[in-house]
Amino acid sequence: MIVVMKPGCTPADVQHVVELVRQLGLKDHVIVGTDRTVVAAIGDKRGIDKGAIENAPMVDRIVPILAPYKVASKEVKQEPSVIRVGAAGATIGGPKIGVIAGPCSVETEEQILTTARRVRAAGAIGLRGGAFKPRTSPYDFQGLGEQGLKMLARARDETGLAIVTEVMAVDMVDLVASYADVLQIGARNMHNFELLKVVGQCRKPVLLKRGMAATLEEFLLAAEYIMSAGNPNVILCERGIRTSETYVRNTLPLAVVPAVKRESHLPIIVDPSHGTGHAYMVPAMCRAAIAAGADGLIVEVHPDPEHALTDGAQSITCETFAQTMNEVRAVAHAVGRTA
Amino acid sequence: MIVVMKPGCTPADVQHVVELVRQLGLKDHVIVGTDRTVVAAIGDKRGIDKGAIENAPMVDRIVPILAPYKVASKEVKQEPSVIRVGAAGATIGGPKIGVIAGPCSVETEEQILTTARRVRAAGAIGLRGGAFKPRTSPYDFQGLGEQGLKMLARARDETGLAIVTEVMAVDMVDLVASYADVLQIGARNMHNFELLKVVGQCRKPVLLKRGMAATLEEFLLAAEYIMSAGNPNVILCERGIRTSETYVRNTLPLAVVPAVKRESHLPIIVDPSHGTGHAYMVPAMCRAAIAAGADGLIVEVHPDPEHALTDGAQSITCETFAQTMNEVRAVAHAVGRTA
Amino acid sequence: MIVVMKPGCTPADVQHVVELVRQLGLKDHVIVGTDRTVVAAIGDKRGIDKGAIENAPMVDRIVPILAPYKVASKEVKQEPSVIRVGAAGATIGGPKIGVIAGPCSVETEEQILTTARRVRAAGAIGLRGGAFKPRTSPYDFQGLGEQGLKMLARARDETGLAIVTEVMAVDMVDLVASYADVLQIGARNMHNFELLKVVGQCRKPVLLKRGMAATLEEFLLAAEYIMSAGNPNVILCERGIRTSETYVRNTLPLAVVPAVKRESHLPIIVDPSHGTGHAYMVPAMCRAAIAAGADGLIVEVHPDPEHALTDGAQSITCETFAQTMNEVRAVAHAVGRTA
Amino acid sequence: MIVVMKPGCTPADVQHVVELVRQLGLKDHVIVGTDRTVVAAIGDKRGIDKGAIENAPMVDRIVPILAPYKVASKEVKQEPSVIRVGAAGATIGGPKIGVIAGPCSVETEEQILTTARRVRAAGAIGLRGGAFKPRTSPYDFQGLGEQGLKMLARARDETGLAIVTEVMAVDMVDLVASYADVLQIGARNMHNFELLKVVGQCRKPVLLKRGMAATLEEFLLAAEYIMSAGNPNVILCERGIRTSETYVRNTLPLAVVPAVKRESHLPIIVDPSHGTGHAYMVPAMCRAAIAAGADGLIVEVHPDPEHALTDGAQSITCETFAQTMNEVRAVAHAVGRTA
Repeated sequence: MIVVMKPGCTPADVQHVVELVRQLGLKDHVIVGTDRTVVAAIGDKRGIDKGAIENAPMVDRIVPILAPYKVASKEVKQEPSVIRVGAAGATIGGPKIGVIAGPCSVETEEQILTTARRVRAAGAIGLRGGAFKPRTSPYDFQGLGEQGLKMLARARDETGLAIVTEVMAVDMVDLVASYADVLQIGARNMHNFELLKVVGQCRKPVLLKRGMAATLEEFLLAAEYIMSAGNPNVILCERGIRTSETYVRNTLPLAVVPAVKRESHLPIIVDPSHGTGHAYMVPAMCRAAIAAGADGLIVEVHPDPEHALTDGAQSITCETFAQTMNEVRAVAHAVGRTA
Repeated sequence: MIVVMKPGCTPADVQHVVELVRQLGLKDHVIVGTDRTVVAAIGDKRGIDKGAIENAPMVDRIVPILAPYKVASKEVKQEPSVIRVGAAGATIGGPKIGVIAGPCSVETEEQILTTARRVRAAGAIGLRGGAFKPRTSPYDFQGLGEQGLKMLARARDETGLAIVTEVMAVDMVDLVASYADVLQIGARNMHNFELLKVVGQCRKPVLLKRGMAATLEEFLLAAEYIMSAGNPNVILCERGIRTSETYVRNTLPLAVVPAVKRESHLPIIVDPSHGTGHAYMVPAMCRAAIAAGADGLIVEVHPDPEHALTDGAQSITCETFAQTMNEVRAVAHAVGRTA
Repeated sequence: MIVVMKPGCTPADVQHVVELVRQLGLKDHVIVGTDRTVVAAIGDKRGIDKGAIENAPMVDRIVPILAPYKVASKEVKQEPSVIRVGAAGATIGGPKIGVIAGPCSVETEEQILTTARRVRAAGAIGLRGGAFKPRTSPYDFQGLGEQGLKMLARARDETGLAIVTEVMAVDMVDLVASYADVLQIGARNMHNFELLKVVGQCRKPVLLKRGMAATLEEFLLAAEYIMSAGNPNVILCERGIRTSETYVRNTLPLAVVPAVKRESHLPIIVDPSHGTGHAYMVPAMCRAAIAAGADGLIVEVHPDPEHALTDGAQSITCETFAQTMNEVRAVAHAVGRTA
Repeated sequence: MIVVMKPGCTPADVQHVVELVRQLGLKDHVIVGTDRTVVAAIGDKRGIDKGAIENAPMVDRIVPILAPYKVASKEVKQEPSVIRVGAAGATIGGPKIGVIAGPCSVETEEQILTTARRVRAAGAIGLRGGAFKPRTSPYDFQGLGEQGLKMLARARDETGLAIVTEVMAVDMVDLVASYADVLQIGARNMHNFELLKVVGQCRKPVLLKRGMAATLEEFLLAAEYIMSAGNPNVILCERGIRTSETYVRNTLPLAVVPAVKRESHLPIIVDPSHGTGHAYMVPAMCRAAIAAGADGLIVEVHPDPEHALTDGAQSITCETFAQTMNEVRAVAHAVGRTA
């Protein structure tokens, strides 16, 4: 941490900061510059509130130097983590791109089985589908609950696809984990720390979506919650952020892919459905995500988007998905991967 | 809802949309304009996914007309809701400004009692203090838990202040509600719908903070979750949003105050501590919030911010708080209210 | 500047950075921390591209320490600047609040004279009105040009109000300056550096609006362009920024007021009309801006907003303005100022 | 345009809106819904301020239906525009990807010639390089001026590359156009309408960068300014927007590529250098842009980024550029294009 003093600070002001630094168990190092004095605080103390020093007289600001995450970082593990997804041996994080596809919500057995067969045939390794839905309005369809989980399990039995489904609350983790192959933490729950701790006690892989205003640091700290609770199998997922743009529902910032690859050993996949909000943009952003180096995709696919109960506007048809998979495969090969 | 067709759509395209509209149980009304055709869909169907129609051929976009919230809206209740806070008869939402103050975290009994006495003397009606803390990093101080709640209760016994403290998970609601006068839902949990439903089954007032990227509509829908579950006592709280600004931790958008007053009967208070992230800005933004028409404030106050375990950078001292309360009172009178 | 090295850097990597620092004419200072090594670069070199060092091997990032502006900063001038506005002795930046009001565009002589009389009577010191309009669409009304400037001059002759009007291009500065008392640089031109240099060669005060995505640093650097060209009479104006909010046209971040007061000696006023985009929010945000410590306001007022040629949605009537001025005066007194 | 009335409006309120609509020369059409009444205003009147109606009593809001741009839109021209760039027959907008590369600033003849030869050999069709630089700080290097333009011309003579360089002010257009093959309008000038009109009177192609907070609509309206002044040769360029993200200098929203392709016939290229701000991200985002369907790239390349006078942090070396071009070519082939 670097404490930047205001211009005009006195030696007593600097000494006061030095003492605060020592009280935190850190070593101090004062540098008197031409215009500004700074106090470097040396030592690895991730768990203390260094910001408090900002309140000391004549302190201008605090600049943290150490990233606050550890087990998610490349500092502790250089080689990429490869996460096993489902019983069929599929993985995410290796040279092969892993694509998860399926409807926003499980609606009927026929809907989910049809979709499963079609996305399997097109090359997906996982089936997504919500049984418990986080809905912005209390009046919206909230999902089929356990009945939906059972339908997903039937689709897995038939197709071998790994089941990826969202868990929204601590008391549902056991139930959802008894059906799912991958536990999804939605963007709205990325900061639900209690939930992160509980899925951290599972062994099932966790698909962790970035919050819609989360910084990269907060995203990796959410992974750190899960990992430090004992579960190393975290798949990061970028799903778009809130910005001033209006032609999309969310802005999909693909530069997060090289940024994550630089900071962390965890795999990262991209959700172009939520990441744009419009079906017509999804194929282009699937291709772009893979070209940027993403380890996979999660895509909303519905056999009849015009009649979908949820997220119809951003769901592509099974035909469009098959076509998109062909394009994704070509791009994957172009960047030295397979799909 | 208005369905805007693309230029060049055929009568068959329009007819297809008309049929989709009818399938939703809505009445259709086609308007052929000079350049564009639109299909108005008439009827009050809040719980269906109208966006799916965006997927139909030659549809350009969907424009919703009805606000999706109801019990939180002025359409069902014109007069402002006044929420009783604590046993001492204090209220938020009436002509008198209600100010809640206290440390980010409960740290020690002495810390919380000292703060309680000082903020009470300065005119606060409530004492804030976190016992369970939502922390971005798993390595940060996570709060004293129930021990902290007990300290808060002792401070209430001594000062009569209403206790406002955060509840982070469904399985903690009963415990927290047994000590608190007001249940706080933090910004990171505004979209934790399971938690909203459970506090909606309490009778205790709920202080609902706006999520850091939530739209006004989503904010009111979160209130709607609580209210539609049976608890009408919701106090909205603006705490700043994530933007491109870097001289603040969050941008505090005070225009939300007149916007909420136009849309809803619920009271709204402002949190200038999280809303800026810097102690030196807090007094100015307390005054501004009241001038904008806010019904109250929630302010982080610490007897020794330089040594605070959490949020030191944005906590003001007890002295600064007392001075700020004098200023707030003057502004309140200037806008025809008391404090 | 602080250069933060990546973990695992070698002494040769650090030495390479040290040499780059010395090539910039700066003094180096290496600090080896527990986890990270940093190189502090000491010296005041505002005009060089320090970011280039980010490209050196094993450099993680660069942290600037010095603010890049100088004459706009409090480091060179502690006491607030008071800017004289017009011939009648009015000022902005002193204890008295200065309010500028008038229509978005000058439309007719009657419109501008009526507005001038009404806002003068209500207590305004300046009359705003666009003669050359920056319009997002080439098909929109582009202003009356010099004819509009002449109408403004007539309104000044009659009322004594200072004339504030926008100059959009280098080759119009002489013309506009021959009529105006204050040259307005619009938000869209805050980064038009050629224009900033030219108005910097005038003696007329400049009202500089913040760009809609400009950082505080960029805002002050735009002022620095004008001031370093020789014109110290800069009035800063916050007019709202682009964010993810949708219930406003722009988000008005009032914390910029205390931030500017901390960093700069220049006065700052607030534009709640563009800052919100909706007439119904303007009175509340006028009060809030003054409560936050702003030195004045610039408000769009039109005698008949329903028929305004431009910005009708955010223009208040003359009646609402008079009422708002009463409220603003009360708030100004509450915070120890006059209006 | 659709005027949405507030709940509780009277027939007189609706009639008042109907009259305002008629005064604008539009046809009215009232729809009384279950909860809300709306007034549709029919007719193509792009140049009037419809927002003013928002001020009428009991009006809730205005929803525009027509896009305000015309000659830039697909409504008037379906087939993609292909823009000829330079004398050598290169184009942007056809099946072949067009890549423009070069340093941020022209620094020396050797620097620009070396770069030109290297990027030409790697497959670029254009050479970028700033002679007049828009710099955020008045103390930063402002470019070599006409001397820089001459160096660019020499590089063209030797390599045949088309010269792309920025023009920042109206009175420089003739000078810059006498050397350049493509006139670049920088992001900070996207809203400099006077400049747009003047380059609209040139015949040279214009590379128009999106403003850092501009909406898609504003971006296309800026193109409309140029085109409606007579110059149809506009190449759009996405260069990143300001958001809450901090690990990048700008967020690069690649979904703008399919969005532009849907709305406009103009070609769009991507600038991953400004679009991220960090050299290490540039190759990934070059690949992603092409995969998303962009018609080309503009990339900052410097023979020695560690010593670049400007934008060193985001400039890649000539070696990295050559490698990136190989990757881009592979991706281009994968999506059915050449490079």
